[in-house]
Amino acid sequence: MASKSHLPPPVMAVSRSLRRTNPITYILAAGLCIFFLYFFFADGTSIPRIKNLDAGAKQILSSKDAASNALSPPSLPYIKPKLAEGEVMAPPPVVHYHMNNVTVTGDPIGNRESVLILTPLARFYDGYWDNLVKLSYPHDLISLGFIIPKGREGNLATQQLQERIQKTQAPTNKNRFASITILRQDDEIPVLTSEHERHALSAQKERRAAMSKARNALLFTTLGPTTSWVLWLDSDIVETPASLVQDLASHDKGIIVPNCFQRYYNKDKESMDVRPYDFNSWQDSPTAKGLAEKMGPEEILLEGYAEMATYRNLMAYMADATDLNGDPRREVNLDGVGGTALLVKADVHRDGAMFPPFPFYHLIETEGFARMATRLGWQAHGLPNYF
Amino acid sequence: MASKSHLPPPVMAVSRSLRRTNPITYILAAGLCIFFLYFFFADGTSIPRIKNLDAGAKQILSSKDAASNALSPPSLPYIKPKLAEGEVMAPPPVVHYHMNNVTVTGDPIGNRESVLILTPLARFYDGYWDNLVKLSYPHDLISLGFIIPKGREGNLATQQLQERIQKTQAPTNKNRFASITILRQDDEIPVLTSEHERHALSAQKERRAAMSKARNALLFTTLGPTTSWVLWLDSDIVETPASLVQDLASHDKGIIVPNCFQRYYNKDKESMDVRPYDFNSWQDSPTAKGLAEKMGPEEILLEGYAEMATYRNLMAYMADATDLNGDPRREVNLDGVGGTALLVKADVHRDGAMFPPFPFYHLIETEGFARMATRLGWQAHGLPNYF
Repeated sequence: MASKSHLPPPVMAVSRSLRRTNPITYILAAGLCIFFLYFFFADGTSIPRIKNLDAGAKQILSSKDAASNALSPPSLPYIKPKLAEGEVMAPPPVVHYHMNNVTVTGDPIGNRESVLILTPLARFYDGYWDNLVKLSYPHDLISLGFIIPKGREGNLATQQLQERIQKTQAPTNKNRFASITILRQDDEIPVLTSEHERHALSAQKERRAAMSKARNALLFTTLGPTTSWVLWLDSDIVETPASLVQDLASHDKGIIVPNCFQRYYNKDKESMDVRPYDFNSWQDSPTAKGLAEKMGPEEILLEGYAEMATYRNLMAYMADATDLNGDPRREVNLDGVGGTALLVKADVHRDGAMFPPFPFYHLIETEGFARMATRLGWQAHGLPNYF
Repeated sequence: MASKSHLPPPVMAVSRSLRRTNPITYILAAGLCIFFLYFFFADGTSIPRIKNLDAGAKQILSSKDAASNALSPPSLPYIKPKLAEGEVMAPPPVVHYHMNNVTVTGDPIGNRESVLILTPLARFYDGYWDNLVKLSYPHDLISLGFIIPKGREGNLATQQLQERIQKTQAPTNKNRFASITILRQDDEIPVLTSEHERHALSAQKERRAAMSKARNALLFTTLGPTTSWVLWLDSDIVETPASLVQDLASHDKGIIVPNCFQRYYNKDKESMDVRPYDFNSWQDSPTAKGLAEKMGPEEILLEGYAEMATYRNLMAYMADATDLNGDPRREVNLDGVGGTALLVKADVHRDGAMFPPFPFYHLIETEGFARMATRLGWQAHGLPNYF
C-alpha cells in the first residue's frame, strides 16, 4: 500500500519532521459536528423477498441485504418497493433485524458482511477516491464516513469530495456505495504558535489528541447495528490492493494492520522507490516500557523522535529482505497500531475501544486504541509483507 | 425519583448486599448483539417544507424535525410524503442535514433537540414503561434503545417489552416515540460460582465490567448524527417527574445526575418511606485517593463496602435536611456518577467518553465514565435535592 507523497522527496528524517508539523495537511480540530451530508444507495432493482404477516402490519425481512423500512440504520441500503397502480403501502411496519445473521468472519463477501470505511479528511486527493472506487469488495456492502475540519481548507475538501460523490453515487451507477456520511467539525484548525512549532513533541500530542476526538466523533456517529467491520483509511492513501478489505478480513482478527509504504523519487538510485511510512505499528520494547515507568502521568511516548529512543520493533522494518516479495499472509502481534489503514471488527469498538485523546498507559490516539483493545481482550496483528 | 423495590424491605445493608449479588436482576453478559428490532414513528401528518432544486434531484430539508429520505439516521423520524395519483417519487435524493441547527441547550424543547434514552434491561417492569410514557418531553423527539441479555430471563423481558411497544407505537397513537431499538446480547448470563458469591467485591468487578460492555455496545450502536442528549435510565426506575428530561437539560451541563431514592416499607415508622439508592454519585475524598494510590493497577475502588471505607461525600446523603423539600436546582460537582438516571450531552460521548470495563484510575463503569469525561474536559454535576 502506498501513500500519497505531497512533498518533494527530501531526506527521510527531514520529510517526517516537516510532515509532522504541517498544520494544513494534518491537524484536525476537535469539536461539534456542524454539517452533515447523507447520500445513499437506493433503487428498485433487487427487492428482497418479504413475507407478509398480520395482514401486512408486520414484516419480517428474509434478507439482511436491504431494509424495507423508512428508518433503516445507515449501514443498510434502503430499497423502496415498487407498487403497482392502485396498490397501497402497508402501515408503518415493525421491522425485525435478526442480528444473529450479521456475522464477522474470514469470508465477509460470502456472508454479505457490511464494512464501514472511516476517513478523517483534511485534504482531498483524487487518487484516494480513485483507489476507493477500485476496491473489489461489493460496494453495496460498503458505507463511507468522513469528518472534515472547519475552515477554508475543509470547505475545499468538502467541495472536491462532493463533486466525486455526485458522479459515483449517480442512480445509474450500479457500482455505487451503500451510503456516505460527511461530518463537518465546529472548530477551526488551530494555528500553531511559534513556540509549539519549536517543541514538536508537544505539538504532536495536541495534534493527535485533536485527531483522536475527530476519530471518536466519526465512529460514535456512524457505527450502526449491522456494521461488521470498520476500516480506518487515511485520506492520503492512494494505492492499495483492490482486494484490501477481503484480504485483511480473511485473517479473521479483531484488529489487523497492513504495512504502509510511501512512493518517492530516490536520488541515489535515480528512480522511483518506496520507503517506510507508518511508524505507529510496533511491538513494545523493554526500553519503551522503562521510559513509560519513569514518566509523569501526563507524558506520552511517541515514535520517531531521536530524543526518545524507544528501540521498539517497528513493523515498517519487519518486511522480509528488501525484495518486498515475502509471504503477504505472515502475521505478527502488535502492541501499537497506526491509523493509515486499520481493519477493526465492529465488536472491538462496541466493547468500548476508542481513540484516547488523553495519555492511556502513556499512549495516545491509534496507539492508545491498541492498548485499550488489549484491555478489552483483543489482540492487534500486523502483516509486515502485505502492502 | 424512586426505583422499583423488588425485594422485601430488609435492613438496608443486607438489602444492598443482596441486590449486588442477585445475578438474575443485574448481571448483563457482554458480547455480540444477535437480535435487533426497529420500530419507528412515521405518518404523513406534518411533512416538512421541501425545496426542489436541480429538477428534484437534490432536496434540502428546511426542518430538522423529520427526514424525507430513505436512509435517515435512527435518531430522526421519517415522514413519508403523500403522493397524489399519478405523481412520481423523485429519484434518490442527496439530503443535507445542516448540523449547526442541531443544538444542545438549556431549552431542548424550544430548540427541538433529540433525546436518546438508553436502558440496559435485564427485567421488564410495567412501572418503568408507564413512567416512560408519562414523560412530558415531546415523544417525537425521543428515541429509545435497549440492550437485553441472552437466555430465558432476557427472552421474557424482550417479550414483555414488545407487548408494551406494540400498543404505544400503534400508528393511531399520536404520542408514540420517534424510534425504538432493541439489541439482544450473544452471551448467556454468567452463573456466579459459590466462590464468586463469597467474594462479593470481585463479583462486583465482573458484573460491572459486563455492564460496561453492554452500555458501550448500546451507545456505539444507537448514537446518531442528530442526537443532542443521551439519558441513561435504569430499568427499575418506575417513578420520575414527568419533566425529567427538560428539568435536567435546563442546567445545560455536560453530565448531570438527579438524586435517586427507593420506596420501601419502614417497619419502625409502620409506613412507606424512602431511602438512598444510588451510591455511585460522589465527591472524592483524601481517604479514597490514598486508597487508590496504594492499589495495584488492576484493583478498583467500590462504594458501600465496610472493608473499603472511602469516606467519600455521597450525593445520596447531600439532600437538604430530612423534609426532602430543599432547592431542587442546587448543583454540586461530582467526581463519580451512577447510571440510575444520568443525562449526558451527546458530544461528551462523541469526544470518546465511554464506560470503561477495565480499571480506569481505579474506577469502573459509570464511575470510570465520569473520570474519563473529566479527562476529556467535561465536569459532572449532581442535583442532591432533585428526585
